Amino acid sequence: MRREQTSRQSRELILRAAAELFAEKGYRQTTFADVAERSGISRGSIPWHFGGKEGLLVAVLEHSVQELLQPPGGLPRADADGVEQVLEEAERFLRLPLSRLFVTLLIEAVEPDSPIHDRYVAIQDGMRARIQTWAEGLPLAEGVTPRGLAVTVLGATIGIHQQWRLTPDRIDLDEAFATLRTMLVGALIAS
Amino acid sequence: MRREQTSRQSRELILRAAAELFAEKGYRQTTFADVAERSGISRGSIPWHFGGKEGLLVAVLEHSVQELLQPPGGLPRADADGVEQVLEEAERFLRLPLSRLFVTLLIEAVEPDSPIHDRYVAIQDGMRARIQTWAEGLPLAEGVTPRGLAVTVLGATIGIHQQWRLTPDRIDLDEAFATLRTMLVGALIAS
Repeated sequence: MRREQTSRQSRELILRAAAELFAEKGYRQTTFADVAERSGISRGSIPWHFGGKEGLLVAVLEHSVQELLQPPGGLPRADADGVEQVLEEAERFLRLPLSRLFVTLLIEAVEPDSPIHDRYVAIQDGMRARIQTWAEGLPLAEGVTPRGLAVTVLGATIGIHQQWRLTPDRIDLDEAFATLRTMLVGALIAS
Repeated sequence: MRREQTSRQSRELILRAAAELFAEKGYRQTTFADVAERSGISRGSIPWHFGGKEGLLVAVLEHSVQELLQPPGGLPRADADGVEQVLEEAERFLRLPLSRLFVTLLIEAVEPDSPIHDRYVAIQDGMRARIQTWAEGLPLAEGVTPRGLAVTVLGATIGIHQQWRLTPDRIDLDEAFATLRTMLVGALIAS
């Protein structure tokens, strides 16, 4: 029992360190030696837990799925107040350390034969589905569809995040989100 | 003269091949041998033109700056019709083969000491400046600022592009842009 618990703790420490390092340096630049140093777990035990580096990558993404797909607070309310909740979730996502990882891993996920392609797609699907389900309960302005809204709002969140990450001192997140709020309200018909 | 022309042509062929390969495989996965094969120019002459691989990367980005920053058609008109022009530019950007490169290179550009960091930032700045200048001539809805609009519209374009690139068969670009159009109109005060 004791040994099992220690093993679980080691696994957890390795995953946390790897997620940080992948987000900071990128996947390819991160070595087992880096992960060992950051986690305090010996280098030799990393393959014991995860096999190769790809196994570690897949495990890191699996580990973060819960946090990305199940934000606290349930589905947004099917009325205009839901706008606030959708935006809060978007902002929360944007400020999560995980999002940095999520953006960094895009480059690994984009090839169809990538070991994380399917899981990455499933996470994006899940995020779009939340917005789409919310929008399906609302009267939408002309030209707006629940699916189109899901792609556009997730897209804006991803794209604002990337500009901010590249030049944090030039991107005012509050200003961008205030604009997105007004644009999102403009996509709904006032009831 | 003849030799100079041949040299310019070789340079051009190498740049074009490298841009395609960086967009397809990523920068790190591309070798001089790949570039030689794709361009038909001998492997040995690539360093003669560009020095190392970083020199080639910088040259590829420089080469694409014009096309990214000066879309045909001048600045968008300072009225609601400008919405169509802004969206046309966004869609045009999204469908350019160059954009694929632009997204792939983000991962190289994000570190402040990257050789392309400053140039990449300058391209994003230029794109935001076009939208911001356009929006400064328009009455904007509450909560919307020209700068916020620039970050949000460029962000939506980047983020829609990335979802589409990851899962082209699940993302309907026309649907997403129709939604973005209505949202953008909602950010302006009808005149």
